[in-house]
Amino acid sequence: MSFIATPQFMHFPEALPLQGGASIQDYTLAYETYGTLNAERSNAVLVCHALNASHHVAGVYEGQPKSEGWWDNMIGPGKPVDTNRFFVIGVNNLGSCFGSTGPMHTHPGTGSVYGADFPVVTVEDWVDAQARLLDRLGITQLAAVMGGSLGGMQALSWTIQYPERMRHAVVVASAPNLTAENIAFNEVARRAIVTDPDFHGGHFYAHGVVPKRGLRIARMIGHITYLSDDVMNEKFGRQLRDGLEPKYSTQDIEFQIESYLRHQGDKFSDYFDANTYLLITRALDYFDPALRHGGSLTRALAAVRARYLLVSFSTDWRFAPARSREIVKALLDNHRDVAYAEIDAPHGHDAFLLEDARYMAVVRSYFDNIAKELV
Amino acid sequence: MSFIATPQFMHFPEALPLQGGASIQDYTLAYETYGTLNAERSNAVLVCHALNASHHVAGVYEGQPKSEGWWDNMIGPGKPVDTNRFFVIGVNNLGSCFGSTGPMHTHPGTGSVYGADFPVVTVEDWVDAQARLLDRLGITQLAAVMGGSLGGMQALSWTIQYPERMRHAVVVASAPNLTAENIAFNEVARRAIVTDPDFHGGHFYAHGVVPKRGLRIARMIGHITYLSDDVMNEKFGRQLRDGLEPKYSTQDIEFQIESYLRHQGDKFSDYFDANTYLLITRALDYFDPALRHGGSLTRALAAVRARYLLVSFSTDWRFAPARSREIVKALLDNHRDVAYAEIDAPHGHDAFLLEDARYMAVVRSYFDNIAKELV
Repeated sequence: MSFIATPQFMHFPEALPLQGGASIQDYTLAYETYGTLNAERSNAVLVCHALNASHHVAGVYEGQPKSEGWWDNMIGPGKPVDTNRFFVIGVNNLGSCFGSTGPMHTHPGTGSVYGADFPVVTVEDWVDAQARLLDRLGITQLAAVMGGSLGGMQALSWTIQYPERMRHAVVVASAPNLTAENIAFNEVARRAIVTDPDFHGGHFYAHGVVPKRGLRIARMIGHITYLSDDVMNEKFGRQLRDGLEPKYSTQDIEFQIESYLRHQGDKFSDYFDANTYLLITRALDYFDPALRHGGSLTRALAAVRARYLLVSFSTDWRFAPARSREIVKALLDNHRDVAYAEIDAPHGHDAFLLEDARYMAVVRSYFDNIAKELV
Repeated sequence: MSFIATPQFMHFPEALPLQGGASIQDYTLAYETYGTLNAERSNAVLVCHALNASHHVAGVYEGQPKSEGWWDNMIGPGKPVDTNRFFVIGVNNLGSCFGSTGPMHTHPGTGSVYGADFPVVTVEDWVDAQARLLDRLGITQLAAVMGGSLGGMQALSWTIQYPERMRHAVVVASAPNLTAENIAFNEVARRAIVTDPDFHGGHFYAHGVVPKRGLRIARMIGHITYLSDDVMNEKFGRQLRDGLEPKYSTQDIEFQIESYLRHQGDKFSDYFDANTYLLITRALDYFDPALRHGGSLTRALAAVRARYLLVSFSTDWRFAPARSREIVKALLDNHRDVAYAEIDAPHGHDAFLLEDARYMAVVRSYFDNIAKELV
């Protein structure tokens, strides 16, 4: 039985300058907290989310027993990140569609829905917004910042942007930037959305429609890249949906994998905002801390102070172990304290969200050691 | 300077029964031949094409110096498959959009354009149609049948369906069937096409439109799977299209890889037929000779008589070397004569179309030996 989580909202009237040159003001961040902040305010752990997640990291909502947070297997009482010891904060990023200010909200300056006019936000902007939230919560220094995938990029960026504000960073299934192939998959998904006639240049809200065709395609592409070839073959293989003989049709579902992908696409298109999809994939594309240091990740990480745990998964071909090792190497170049675990797991990129005994044990052990520093 | 190729057309009034239960009659196959059939009719090589290719395998068309065939580096006078010694036949598959009867042609029975009513064709059906073409050309036995990717599947299927009709089979960058991931990519591409409002259930010809949005997305996905991560990073990396700083836009082109993919998608949507795309990807999905043998490829290949050359490429993640090795193993289980070359090439699946000294040398040497048998 999971504990009850309650979303909270914090309004920020002052303008937040953004990396792209614009700024955003009068915005709200949705967040949740679990556990209790200790008297020294030293046991806070910030959890950053990836593409399709939110501030609802752990626990369930009152009366909704199936509403577990997206990292509920990792965070909670007695779990690897133990909320009996840590005060855990989940925050929904700016531009998302789960509670924080995003493209479907009204621009306070114009009175119109933002839509495609929502400013482009970057990983660095999200970190700045999260830092202001921590200021308001009275937290000067985090025990740890953690995240997986795009959330790991935020954790890494935290250590660069605010080197004094955390003691540890846990970066799971992440990368120091996207490869050309990663960007390519994002771009195809974006084109599917943008060229959907129901997108209306991003102002579809005013037309009372949603570019569901594009969102479905985007999600289907995403799912392929989240899974490993191995796990797809094991779960679906070449299994037909109906019977043992194909129906010989170009448009009907024949294979189980098709049924799975269409279902995932349909579900996603019912709740995810198309402009948010564009914004978040662009934040992924743009993240590249080495860029301002002549392409040197080592130089980008020269001023960090945190200690690190990096975790990658053997079958993750989206953010392959080699990408985590790049970060490890750059940290070692800077004589930083870094632990690295490469988990042999079959589930591809998705592994970072799944129950895996060795993975959970590594994170548990790392946080047990952080807890010892608290006393 | 390449030689001049001339497309030819052969009409087949009699019905061809198809694997899916339907049949097709009054159809035409477009084909080309290069070199001269010897008096013994023993030097014919049939070349089978993959998704986006045709009967125009080698040479150029009169007055069109840039119109090289898709395997012009492999086939021609003095080339690995030497048309001074071999009589090479390229044939466009049924359902394609390059000259043979396909969905954009008129159904002779109804007087309407086939569109989505064009029957589903399989690799086995293509092989049957090619066999009838050879009958009409008076060729009882091929010196070799060869193809890459989906073309390799046809070459493999030839040796199962007509074990006496060829002495050699050259199967390049192919697989004994698609993996779940392969099917998944095909399905996303098909969904992009089918859900394009301009598709009109496959009868878009009558509406004077083309589902270009869907075709563009399909082609972009395809291109990602044809290239290796390595070659994408080398060719495009994270290079921006304009200048050194991003423009911070969700819809404009920022990265060179985006520009490349959009260009490929645009080009493709100008000439490729949407129904053909569905048909050809389905032929890929359905191909699975082991299925009728309880999943045993060894049993599926029990009656083959050909000698084989198999070639795979180290960075091909679409049809990985392991898939070629499955075929090699099944052939060895049957005590067949098989040569296998795994070429260390950086170009991913595309490598089978590209100039690579070791690859060309392997094919040349194999065909030199075939030529020795001719005398």
